Amino acid sequence: MNVERQRSASRNRNHHWYENGQSAFAGELLELFHGIDALFLSWAGECDAAEYAFPTFLPAASLAKLDYFRSFPHLVTFPVTLDADEDNLSRFAEGEPMDQSGAVNLARLAPVCDVLTPAACYHFYPLFKGDVLDGPRYVTTRATCFRREAEYVPLERQWSFSMREIVCLGTAAEVTAFLDGYRRRISAFFDEIGLGIEWKEATDPFFNAPKNPKYLMQKLDPVKTEMVFQDRLAIGSINFHRNYFGEAFEITRAKEATFSGCVAFGIERWIHAWLTQFGHDAKHWPKLP
Amino acid sequence: MNVERQRSASRNRNHHWYENGQSAFAGELLELFHGIDALFLSWAGECDAAEYAFPTFLPAASLAKLDYFRSFPHLVTFPVTLDADEDNLSRFAEGEPMDQSGAVNLARLAPVCDVLTPAACYHFYPLFKGDVLDGPRYVTTRATCFRREAEYVPLERQWSFSMREIVCLGTAAEVTAFLDGYRRRISAFFDEIGLGIEWKEATDPFFNAPKNPKYLMQKLDPVKTEMVFQDRLAIGSINFHRNYFGEAFEITRAKEATFSGCVAFGIERWIHAWLTQFGHDAKHWPKLP
Repeated sequence: MNVERQRSASRNRNHHWYENGQSAFAGELLELFHGIDALFLSWAGECDAAEYAFPTFLPAASLAKLDYFRSFPHLVTFPVTLDADEDNLSRFAEGEPMDQSGAVNLARLAPVCDVLTPAACYHFYPLFKGDVLDGPRYVTTRATCFRREAEYVPLERQWSFSMREIVCLGTAAEVTAFLDGYRRRISAFFDEIGLGIEWKEATDPFFNAPKNPKYLMQKLDPVKTEMVFQDRLAIGSINFHRNYFGEAFEITRAKEATFSGCVAFGIERWIHAWLTQFGHDAKHWPKLP
Repeated sequence: MNVERQRSASRNRNHHWYENGQSAFAGELLELFHGIDALFLSWAGECDAAEYAFPTFLPAASLAKLDYFRSFPHLVTFPVTLDADEDNLSRFAEGEPMDQSGAVNLARLAPVCDVLTPAACYHFYPLFKGDVLDGPRYVTTRATCFRREAEYVPLERQWSFSMREIVCLGTAAEVTAFLDGYRRRISAFFDEIGLGIEWKEATDPFFNAPKNPKYLMQKLDPVKTEMVFQDRLAIGSINFHRNYFGEAFEITRAKEATFSGCVAFGIERWIHAWLTQFGHDAKHWPKLP
């Protein structure tokens, strides 16, 4: 099944699939990528969300605050460099930097203080640390996100992929209204273009899930609803964070830790659903902004 | 000096500077970022360059082919993950994932087979491996690039930054004509808007330069010309690669290893030059596409 899908993806000369779990785009597929993101941006515009462009790395300390390393150690990717000591660099450069299998023979590493962000909205909470909000705050960003998986499938499950998020920080009522409004908005769009999506309650992929209190809490009181294509692939999700980020980063709204929630879209997965539902001929695709 | 510059950058609420050598943009500065890149894309359109969007990682084997690890071990950043063995992940998750200094206590790593790309055009040559060109090929991409430095300065010297490149693969004459044409095109633009740029011959920042034959060769026969702002900051460069990439990746043109060359722009440095020359008030900025 996976092999068949990989073949099908690599047959398209506007899409190149790398064995390391990543995609390159050109031509009509690159236009589709931008068209789909323009659609999300137009939705973000409906709540006047301010757009941000973030860097690739997040300080590891920000993720530690969220207990991410204990919850998702299997997913995380770190950017590392060699200790800059000249002897260390010389030993690396003058030895065999790469072994026969294509793996790098690393030398001593410099301290590792960053991560490759696993989600787009994680950039916002450290940025807004300590802020006192006098109304709901709506923001959006598109980020390349990184999650190591046991195996990769072109467009469907990648080590790095593009995520657009629309985020609201505010009172519980403000965030709930934001999430409900977007769920209706997006459902209407799926009906209009005829994309076969069902909404399903879901949990995050915790490490050692049965023993993780955060997982058990999500099972008891679901906070994540996914847009599931053909009963098997989540192409986006709506997430209610309660006041988890507000507490961790001391962001306050109405004198309490702010609540927050996000609407998240995986662009490569949207492209997969789009091509599966509407075919590879752009003439038959629904119009995008 | 650096401290003064950092303060100046962080005073602007549309620009956020991270201590880990990266920038975030919003508002007018994000529009400027997109406007400057749209300018480069319009130039790329003048040679009908096909646009590609590449992933963040490059297989380490591609860089090894270019002897990159021996030439630039001090610059390279690797993406690493923890060995997925459950005991290894448990030890990491149940221990102290982070020490007091904010550094991650890494567990055993999975084999490291990728790098965070240090230049945008490095993505093209492996993609075109083995191609036989029946005419010059013009392509363009914007990529986030990664170079570890001893110290970082907002917008000027970052661990990760955005690079737009326009690339030509062809005969020596085709590549030379491409590079000369763009040098005239870009010079005319600098004159037109009044940006104080001088063209200067330069070399790449080789490790242990005096002993590196590649460095000595660049000194003898310069292949890199930089667009230098205020006599101190290169905001772009024009590079003639001879047939180096064509040989390494067996790309042929006119029955020989193809020649190649690129025009490269550092977007954050353009933003720095733009703000320095034209000020922070968008009303006084030259028009962009």
